[in-house]
Amino acid sequence: MSEKKINGAGLRGQSAGETSLCTVGKSGSGLTYCGYDVSDLADNASFEEVAYLLFNGELPNVAELAEYKAELFAMRDIPQALKEVLKLIPKDTHPMDVMRTGCSFLGNVEPEVDFSEQRKAANRLLSAFPAIMCYWYRFSHEGVEIDCTSDESSLGGHFLRLLKGESPSAQHERVMDVSLILYAEHEFNASTFTARVCASTLSDMFSCVTGAIGTLRGPLHGGANEAAMDMIQKFTSPADAKEQMAGMLERKEKIMGFGHAIYRTSDPRNDIIKAWSEKLAKENGDTSLYDISVACEEFMWDTKKLFCNADFFHASTYNYMGIPTKLFTPIFVCSRLTGWAAHVMEQRSNNRIIRPSADYIGSDPRKVTPIAQR
Amino acid sequence: MSEKKINGAGLRGQSAGETSLCTVGKSGSGLTYCGYDVSDLADNASFEEVAYLLFNGELPNVAELAEYKAELFAMRDIPQALKEVLKLIPKDTHPMDVMRTGCSFLGNVEPEVDFSEQRKAANRLLSAFPAIMCYWYRFSHEGVEIDCTSDESSLGGHFLRLLKGESPSAQHERVMDVSLILYAEHEFNASTFTARVCASTLSDMFSCVTGAIGTLRGPLHGGANEAAMDMIQKFTSPADAKEQMAGMLERKEKIMGFGHAIYRTSDPRNDIIKAWSEKLAKENGDTSLYDISVACEEFMWDTKKLFCNADFFHASTYNYMGIPTKLFTPIFVCSRLTGWAAHVMEQRSNNRIIRPSADYIGSDPRKVTPIAQR
Repeated sequence: MSEKKINGAGLRGQSAGETSLCTVGKSGSGLTYCGYDVSDLADNASFEEVAYLLFNGELPNVAELAEYKAELFAMRDIPQALKEVLKLIPKDTHPMDVMRTGCSFLGNVEPEVDFSEQRKAANRLLSAFPAIMCYWYRFSHEGVEIDCTSDESSLGGHFLRLLKGESPSAQHERVMDVSLILYAEHEFNASTFTARVCASTLSDMFSCVTGAIGTLRGPLHGGANEAAMDMIQKFTSPADAKEQMAGMLERKEKIMGFGHAIYRTSDPRNDIIKAWSEKLAKENGDTSLYDISVACEEFMWDTKKLFCNADFFHASTYNYMGIPTKLFTPIFVCSRLTGWAAHVMEQRSNNRIIRPSADYIGSDPRKVTPIAQR
Repeated sequence: MSEKKINGAGLRGQSAGETSLCTVGKSGSGLTYCGYDVSDLADNASFEEVAYLLFNGELPNVAELAEYKAELFAMRDIPQALKEVLKLIPKDTHPMDVMRTGCSFLGNVEPEVDFSEQRKAANRLLSAFPAIMCYWYRFSHEGVEIDCTSDESSLGGHFLRLLKGESPSAQHERVMDVSLILYAEHEFNASTFTARVCASTLSDMFSCVTGAIGTLRGPLHGGANEAAMDMIQKFTSPADAKEQMAGMLERKEKIMGFGHAIYRTSDPRNDIIKAWSEKLAKENGDTSLYDISVACEEFMWDTKKLFCNADFFHASTYNYMGIPTKLFTPIFVCSRLTGWAAHVMEQRSNNRIIRPSADYIGSDPRKVTPIAQR
């Protein structure tokens, strides 16, 4: 076996395997899931249809979707022991750490015993994540022990219901649905690659997803929409946004929500979520957050030729729906779980353990000096 | 950026980065940590010295080691909230799932707030893992809420004390120390690579280690010593071992504890742990488990030219020390944590997000069919 030297760290531009699930940045279509353009799916499918597509390779028909939604519906509540664990997690804990522990503990009490249960385990997490997030959030922040079931038909609507305690508007439910579609899958990004490395040792679904959550937690991966929100909230007007951003660039501060490791000219998800942000702004009456966001987009393009990625207009969109900023990245988990789990299943179907080599740059061979002489 | 095609899946023989921590299978020395041969360290150092070496690049002198051991000593107990979580995990849970949740939850209540705390976080986990493992084990299996502190000087001795409730013999303490040294570090194996992918998003230490535990859990990675134990326990004599193994080979059953992905002719750790197994057998009086293990080694070499890896004689060694088989892989966690954490620190010191590409083999572009027509 020869050791090939990679030019550039981080395996950038280097293939680490095969996938049928996704293309990113291929000519003609920015982002596809199983051959479908993400904008086509966002316009003409629900998140549950996309989850079914990723897990099965094909979109469901009416009967299959009804059966699938009924299965998910029945698994929304979480075990009492998990609720006890969530109550032990302090209010100031990073919400991604809550998702990580919640996922890991669910795997303790409802393990994936063998791979014949992989779809069940993935669907269980899909159904349970809104409850894990909202049960902890509302207990730690409001002292309320919520009912983790609801009669909302969609997972997006169910999440909004648990978060706020009341049924969301049809428009908010649809926006959440679209948002979950846009974040569902993105090829061999770092969190998905973590899930595949973990899966390659033939570990269980909960381990793979727990590891992926921990990876998405990093500020270079998830969290850009939260950082974008923190920024735009400080701007008082479109003019103020441009002036303050000029200062940030001058001070070489990092501005989140722009550019992408793979996309070169635009992020195909931006137009979709931007349009929803505008609709919600008009519905809200106060459009200033949207107007400020547009000013940011113009400024970054004019000065740096950087485009908005999927995260930037998600900030104002989620804010218009009344979602606390600290829950933005956990929502990403609720969505991307579908991609992670699909990649775990794909890795298992044609597996070899992922075990690269390293270039050694350390000390030459040496002998241990007795401790008294060190 | 050009897409390079890798020959062979699993990134085998492919460099994924640089390291100063370890060489595996380089000519002249089978396994080195920071330039020191693992057998030199096993003969002339303690596990705490090896942990210090991996975290700091140099072995400690007398004063540094004393200070380091005092730091570790003071952090052995675990918070009451973590004990409550461990009490909620059922007896039949996979012990690696307990370690994964325990690590994740410790990160909830004692987070690594920024990277200046990385050594503290790593040392905290190093000190706390024996308590996490033993508190859960003895509560779930014996109904006992153990004291998680002890006055044992070494971490290996501390673990044996918590497990059994009494001070181990000097010999058992030393064997555990050697075992922890042998498993401490092994370059870019799958669990360590998971930790590095997670670290590359600038996530926290607890996320990286939690992900690594989940990866080590897989039967293609950790767990070989448990599988070896399950096998040798079934053999009644050396002759029976050879006869039954012949049958296993004929039925193409997987035999664990032999061969290695990187080593070609022997595993440098085998001689060391095999010698300790023999000593413990003689101390025990009943040498049959050791004799059976030697018969297995001879048989696999004679028939398949496969050598024992580090795991095989660990099975009899741990068994002679009275360690329950299901805790073998969690002990691996207590040791390999040092390698994982050292790789996390190294990745952070010269980071680029690890984000490979994939070869697409899926559906051609297609349009969403309205659901009623599917």
